[in-house]
Amino acid sequence: MKHHPFTSSPTRSVAALGETQLIAGIRRWLGSVSPARPFGIGDDCAVLPVRAARQLITVDPVIYGRHFDDGVPPRAVGEKLLKRNLSDIAAMGGRPTYAVVALALAADLRTDWLEAFHRGLAACARRHGVKIVGGDVAGTAPGFFGAWLTLHGESAGRRVLTRTGAHRGDWILVTGPLGGSRPGHHYRFTPRLAEGAWLARQPDVVSMIDVSDGIAKDLAELTPAGTVPDVLPRAIPLSRAARKIAATSGRPAWWHAVTDGEDYELLFTVRRAADLPRLMTKWHRHFGRPLFLLGKFAKTASPGSIDWPSLHGFEHLR
Amino acid sequence: MKHHPFTSSPTRSVAALGETQLIAGIRRWLGSVSPARPFGIGDDCAVLPVRAARQLITVDPVIYGRHFDDGVPPRAVGEKLLKRNLSDIAAMGGRPTYAVVALALAADLRTDWLEAFHRGLAACARRHGVKIVGGDVAGTAPGFFGAWLTLHGESAGRRVLTRTGAHRGDWILVTGPLGGSRPGHHYRFTPRLAEGAWLARQPDVVSMIDVSDGIAKDLAELTPAGTVPDVLPRAIPLSRAARKIAATSGRPAWWHAVTDGEDYELLFTVRRAADLPRLMTKWHRHFGRPLFLLGKFAKTASPGSIDWPSLHGFEHLR
Repeated sequence: MKHHPFTSSPTRSVAALGETQLIAGIRRWLGSVSPARPFGIGDDCAVLPVRAARQLITVDPVIYGRHFDDGVPPRAVGEKLLKRNLSDIAAMGGRPTYAVVALALAADLRTDWLEAFHRGLAACARRHGVKIVGGDVAGTAPGFFGAWLTLHGESAGRRVLTRTGAHRGDWILVTGPLGGSRPGHHYRFTPRLAEGAWLARQPDVVSMIDVSDGIAKDLAELTPAGTVPDVLPRAIPLSRAARKIAATSGRPAWWHAVTDGEDYELLFTVRRAADLPRLMTKWHRHFGRPLFLLGKFAKTASPGSIDWPSLHGFEHLR
Repeated sequence: MKHHPFTSSPTRSVAALGETQLIAGIRRWLGSVSPARPFGIGDDCAVLPVRAARQLITVDPVIYGRHFDDGVPPRAVGEKLLKRNLSDIAAMGGRPTYAVVALALAADLRTDWLEAFHRGLAACARRHGVKIVGGDVAGTAPGFFGAWLTLHGESAGRRVLTRTGAHRGDWILVTGPLGGSRPGHHYRFTPRLAEGAWLARQPDVVSMIDVSDGIAKDLAELTPAGTVPDVLPRAIPLSRAARKIAATSGRPAWWHAVTDGEDYELLFTVRRAADLPRLMTKWHRHFGRPLFLLGKFAKTASPGSIDWPSLHGFEHLR
């Protein structure tokens, strides 16, 4: 209950502020990432100048009880809201530009909680050069808080990487170890923006996705029809957290690594004819850490490889 | 309870669908307004081509119990979601282009309700040439439904009209009669897109806003510092609904017209030196209905004029 967002004290809650004061507070808390209107908050629409590159758009929320709980500091909730969306821009090889944020909040929300949320959001936006140009505030029943961020970006290079394009025989790789994130509690991740932009510049990289639901689910999005991802359990790179949880869960660590989700590493495919060792060495030289080769898309699975249909990743509605 | 969105029957609710099936359903229900990926739903981001005009962005939700109730048919809820946002684009003199939609929904939401919601949204999007290019679905506790639409647009002409720019002596006008919308029930309105674009082309029109909260609140956004809106009660154009409600409410009809809100007419200002009769005649010739002159910004209010500080419009957090 350390970071519970709600209070029964009317003076400590947003109910004590009117809508006008609340919006003034949000602008103050956001500081330099909130430009003056009409380029920012305060008019019917935000107005943005013409941009020369193709535009990317994504939307992801944080909802209390779903994407975070009382154990997460409000600054980290604000950061997570932006980072979830930054990870989607990274997965296309893009560069983030600006965002709008819509809040749904109850009158019993703590004002100091909301301030810390916005200060975390602003710090993260400043770090990534994102401007917050508009938004909305709607009231809800007590005990509810949700924030929806629509993030815009643009292609960082000539190419935008999508989820489609892989063929049989193409290689499957991932940018980091996986598993062990606690649902609703994981917020110490780094969106792989530099990595995504770098991978989009490599002609042999075919398709990409960020690992949000766990690769047991996310890998299906990259898998070409008529093939299966042929991946041995020992090829899965394990995070320290996955090993730790496995020690008591009764499940193998690789199982956690493919189903836990919220890793926000990049999962991508490489043309079968590519010089894979060269690509992996080039990456290592650039980023100072390894890439992980999981396997390839095959017509049928090899003996001992992961039986994907028996697993399932995070289902949003369960 | 005619259009209650939730059910205790698991087979009639979205719980019977997995996330994949649900998203497939949404694409089917949206039909032609949902383009193929990567220009639409199904990748980490939507990808959009370069546009030559300045971009407008706005976000507004519909939340069950707040913006609609069991008396509103789900098709109308879907239409209202888009129309609320279209009205913001209209208020800048813009033309709508594309949207992303984020849903927050409980597992007990009726599937047929959600289908009708999307069919209404799609019909309205088709009518206005809006493509729905992406979105998100998040699960919530039972009994909750909210949808956040981020709408993009572009300037229809050379000029974008903002809320700022009016001076003392400038005229205040509105595009239609006001008042009498039932909170949470009003959905039979037309976003004034053609009107907004026309007004933005008139050099004497200075600033504009759409009437969502009631002019008692919205007019404050246009009012220059050091002035008051000098408006006589008899200058307020009354809707039939405002007169009807006033017959039993014990309040004058003009009071309903300035405080009820959700009119979605355009409230705008005209330079004091403008040829006002000429502008009003030109409008009438173009749209076949009158413009309404409310008054002007003065240093002090005339005797008998509306005492704005004693009124207050819709406060989102009350």
